[in-house]
Amino acid sequence: MALDAADLGPATALVCRECGEKYDLGPRYACEQCFGPLEISYDFAGVSREAIEAGPRNIWRYRGLLPVPSNVESTPNTEPGLTRLVRADHLAESLGMQRLWVKDDSGNPTHSFKDRVVAVALAAARELGFKVLACPSTGNLANAVAAAAARAGIRSAVFVPSDLEQQKIIVTAVYGGTFVTVRGNYDDVNRLASEIAGEQDDWAFVNVNVRPYYAEGSKTLGYEIAEQLGWRLPDQIVIPIASGSQLTKIDKAFQEFIKLGLVEDKPYKVFGAQATGCSPVAAAFKAGHDVVRPVKPATIAKSLAIGNPADGPYVLDVVRRTGGAIEDVSDAEVVEGIRLLAATEGIFGETAGGVTVACLRKLVSTGALDPEAETVIINSGDGLKTLDAVAPVVGPSAEIAPTLEDFRASGLA
Amino acid sequence: MALDAADLGPATALVCRECGEKYDLGPRYACEQCFGPLEISYDFAGVSREAIEAGPRNIWRYRGLLPVPSNVESTPNTEPGLTRLVRADHLAESLGMQRLWVKDDSGNPTHSFKDRVVAVALAAARELGFKVLACPSTGNLANAVAAAAARAGIRSAVFVPSDLEQQKIIVTAVYGGTFVTVRGNYDDVNRLASEIAGEQDDWAFVNVNVRPYYAEGSKTLGYEIAEQLGWRLPDQIVIPIASGSQLTKIDKAFQEFIKLGLVEDKPYKVFGAQATGCSPVAAAFKAGHDVVRPVKPATIAKSLAIGNPADGPYVLDVVRRTGGAIEDVSDAEVVEGIRLLAATEGIFGETAGGVTVACLRKLVSTGALDPEAETVIINSGDGLKTLDAVAPVVGPSAEIAPTLEDFRASGLA
Repeated sequence: MALDAADLGPATALVCRECGEKYDLGPRYACEQCFGPLEISYDFAGVSREAIEAGPRNIWRYRGLLPVPSNVESTPNTEPGLTRLVRADHLAESLGMQRLWVKDDSGNPTHSFKDRVVAVALAAARELGFKVLACPSTGNLANAVAAAAARAGIRSAVFVPSDLEQQKIIVTAVYGGTFVTVRGNYDDVNRLASEIAGEQDDWAFVNVNVRPYYAEGSKTLGYEIAEQLGWRLPDQIVIPIASGSQLTKIDKAFQEFIKLGLVEDKPYKVFGAQATGCSPVAAAFKAGHDVVRPVKPATIAKSLAIGNPADGPYVLDVVRRTGGAIEDVSDAEVVEGIRLLAATEGIFGETAGGVTVACLRKLVSTGALDPEAETVIINSGDGLKTLDAVAPVVGPSAEIAPTLEDFRASGLA
Repeated sequence: MALDAADLGPATALVCRECGEKYDLGPRYACEQCFGPLEISYDFAGVSREAIEAGPRNIWRYRGLLPVPSNVESTPNTEPGLTRLVRADHLAESLGMQRLWVKDDSGNPTHSFKDRVVAVALAAARELGFKVLACPSTGNLANAVAAAAARAGIRSAVFVPSDLEQQKIIVTAVYGGTFVTVRGNYDDVNRLASEIAGEQDDWAFVNVNVRPYYAEGSKTLGYEIAEQLGWRLPDQIVIPIASGSQLTKIDKAFQEFIKLGLVEDKPYKVFGAQATGCSPVAAAFKAGHDVVRPVKPATIAKSLAIGNPADGPYVLDVVRRTGGAIEDVSDAEVVEGIRLLAATEGIFGETAGGVTVACLRKLVSTGALDPEAETVIINSGDGLKTLDAVAPVVGPSAEIAPTLEDFRASGLA
């Protein structure tokens, strides 16, 4: 691969998050010294509010802050981002809050925030010479990878556990890429993906061998929130935790905006949300631990069901540094959270959204979160993808015959 | 209702499309003289490219061209519109075309173009004093009405046939409004809705008693296409036909933009797309008839399955006036259309989108549509809502054990 000629915009190097060892940009993801995760280093230049506002109406308006080529928007891609930041007065009222916003990432092309990270991974992977866009996944990520590769005109290769629901198979297989079901659980699929990445030089597994680039895509959520608030930071933000990367990258985005002078430097608190059935980070937070003890997930919030979250310790750092908290909620509360968001704001979130709304409610009731302070919550996906979660509890108000008499008798008039 | 004080922006009157009889603005929808459909008349003022570009990033940027209050964007609503206009080079290439765009309305809040018409209906209905937002529906419209009412903080009342699929019930019932299943087919439900509208003074059935306002929402598709092309009209546009209203309103939007000097006056051809199993307008077009003979729908494209399309004759007028054509395709071709759009552009459309892509292909092959001329097609909804259509034909490439040996043996490397 012709890395010498690679244009990755403001990215300058890869640096180990643990030991600080520095590497040239390239298709690496773990430190050779200590096996720590690698992060992108940057040299930002020419970034201003005006330059961003003059950019495309998608994540590429922030290309000067991402490890992507400077002409990234000229190559076909799904153009995710700039999803709505919705003022949620009805939800706020129902929770006794003052000023609440929902960042609704169900508006992305395949209806989850994964379109952001995949778009950045794809742009970097092409530049690094990869030919195939791949991933192990159980849902949203598979969908985003298959769609992004189709749009880009390159091959995708998606690996999923063979017991995946038929519905999830359809929404990914429809794009026509390579789609492999693997007889095993997600851990087996993930391990196989790493092994294949070691053999297939030109396959970019977005969440494995190009993960440092991929993960940076989540920063755009933070950039957008700040810009959409009118170039300022919220007082509080509630973010769902799967690997924990979304939370740490939103914090990173806020810090970058402060350092670049794009927003005023002010305190903000970062809160994490988990389902109790997979709450290793919440448990560590509550116990005052620095390490996260892996768990076996058992929750309806499948998109958050990572029992051994890679960024767990860094999440604890961010939350403790900013004075936030991490809460967890039962599956029944998740379902209530989904219904509350839909009924008050007309937004049908996926189970991860339900986790976040339910944790918001809990954080208000415990007093950890200030109901008077301006708060943003993330809805990271779409309820259409997790219908089973609410199926048992929603239904018709009444069934009637097609007559006015029956309608009047129903008491619904 | 205090109609004297109503602010409906540039709207000035209701006019019968058949006999020209004029009525004051209000909750009417049929001519008292001839029972013809009523259309909104306007007195446009202060509309300019600059004013539009300075407006909100949703359909309300066109509020000066819609029958809605001048401060419409300040009331909570789902803020639909300004969906992506996607340059579709891979799809064009596969069809031997030069310059093709997909207007992807699956990006709306509830993932169909219905959010546009419902938002306009809701805004007008509130101004006219209605208290409940209602509709008869079998799918997308129910979803859009329930979400919009929830967001606005008013009651919704949705009426559906009682044999509706469980999935469609969930996506509407989750918003928590009144949801009535009716023992009958869609025609029965529709008739009941009209009867209830006659009794319940403050219920706005969006597609019945406030239909003239509702229908105007489809104009925004036309406005957006012209603005997103850089303030100009395409040479050709392919639009799916259900009631036919979307097609006639896009033409109306283009005509308004020409008259207001917002785009250059140039010829454009309007093409219609139907599924053969419900193709009364295509049949009339091909037979050279001016009237549309009703049919009993039998197609997987449920969102287009209107056997007696209200705007059928007006569709024929527009298509013939502009030199377009109307084509229809089999259900198998619809499925192929869905897969082709997904595989070439990463856009998973609903069955109506498949109808449009398949008709585009057919129109190119018959020579009715010029492959060299700039063309726009509409994808009006989301494939997530019509998974059953593609379920029988898409699936995994291979199933393997979680080992490198099995992966190598699969021939997929």
